Amino acid sequence: MTRIVARPLTPAAFAPFGDVLEVTGPPDRIINEGACGRWHDRARLDFGPGGRAGLSLFRAVPRALPYRLSLLERHPDGSQAFVPLQEAPFLVIVAPDAGGVPGRPLAFVTVPGQGVNYLRGTWHGVLAPLSDGVFAVIDRIGPGPNLEEHRFAAPLEVVAG
Amino acid sequence: MTRIVARPLTPAAFAPFGDVLEVTGPPDRIINEGACGRWHDRARLDFGPGGRAGLSLFRAVPRALPYRLSLLERHPDGSQAFVPLQEAPFLVIVAPDAGGVPGRPLAFVTVPGQGVNYLRGTWHGVLAPLSDGVFAVIDRIGPGPNLEEHRFAAPLEVVAG
Repeated sequence: MTRIVARPLTPAAFAPFGDVLEVTGPPDRIINEGACGRWHDRARLDFGPGGRAGLSLFRAVPRALPYRLSLLERHPDGSQAFVPLQEAPFLVIVAPDAGGVPGRPLAFVTVPGQGVNYLRGTWHGVLAPLSDGVFAVIDRIGPGPNLEEHRFAAPLEVVAG
Repeated sequence: MTRIVARPLTPAAFAPFGDVLEVTGPPDRIINEGACGRWHDRARLDFGPGGRAGLSLFRAVPRALPYRLSLLERHPDGSQAFVPLQEAPFLVIVAPDAGGVPGRPLAFVTVPGQGVNYLRGTWHGVLAPLSDGVFAVIDRIGPGPNLEEHRFAAPLEVVAG
């Protein structure tokens, strides 16, 4: 079985696939008379023609490592951001596109306080919290299925780094 | 000093001002082969003409009750959603409009797992976590200041219910 080692999630490693949503470094702006920092416009949101931004909530069953990966999906018409409502890690799996199907996947584990935004059309795994998890999801509302799925001929195994 | 009693945040009480973002009741959809529930499109997002959705992060200094309220603000060109990245309550203050200035404010305290979306043009207090807090903020990116402020002639006191 092909093994994928889950690595810590960093903005540099994740940049081809999307944005890491986290507070790091100084804020871009100080607002509210000094009482609040704003890290401004940190996600490459894209809802395509005919779509609009929506905010939904997801609750997914907890997963664990090692994790059996049999399916990736992508949303051709829009980006999809996941903001965890609890300080707990979750598993992030992405893959480059290789001619309409996923190439070799990469896996990351977040640290508490990190969210992610998948760029429009990016192959990714389904929401996989490592404990009970609720997420705010900012994605496209609009016509069309906006979903492609790819099932691997043989499952891959994602293991802790 | 005028006293405002902070109440528990409920969707019914908050509806004229915005949306409570939380997982309650059954999901609108089950996805990912049964492994995830989706509470779909739960915020009345509105970024106005000439605006687009942006995702930013805010970190604000903790406040406490009683809380001295001297300022409300509103964003005439867009809604503004606050999603807490930790399971902790925060203070939500809103007011109806009364001829271009805020009417009598209402105050709410969230329970862990709740976020809010302020409707476009709704008078509200600045971000006021009750402990160290980071929030994902979904609001309008676009031209113009998109900000009106109202300073009360005398501060109000928000107290625990």
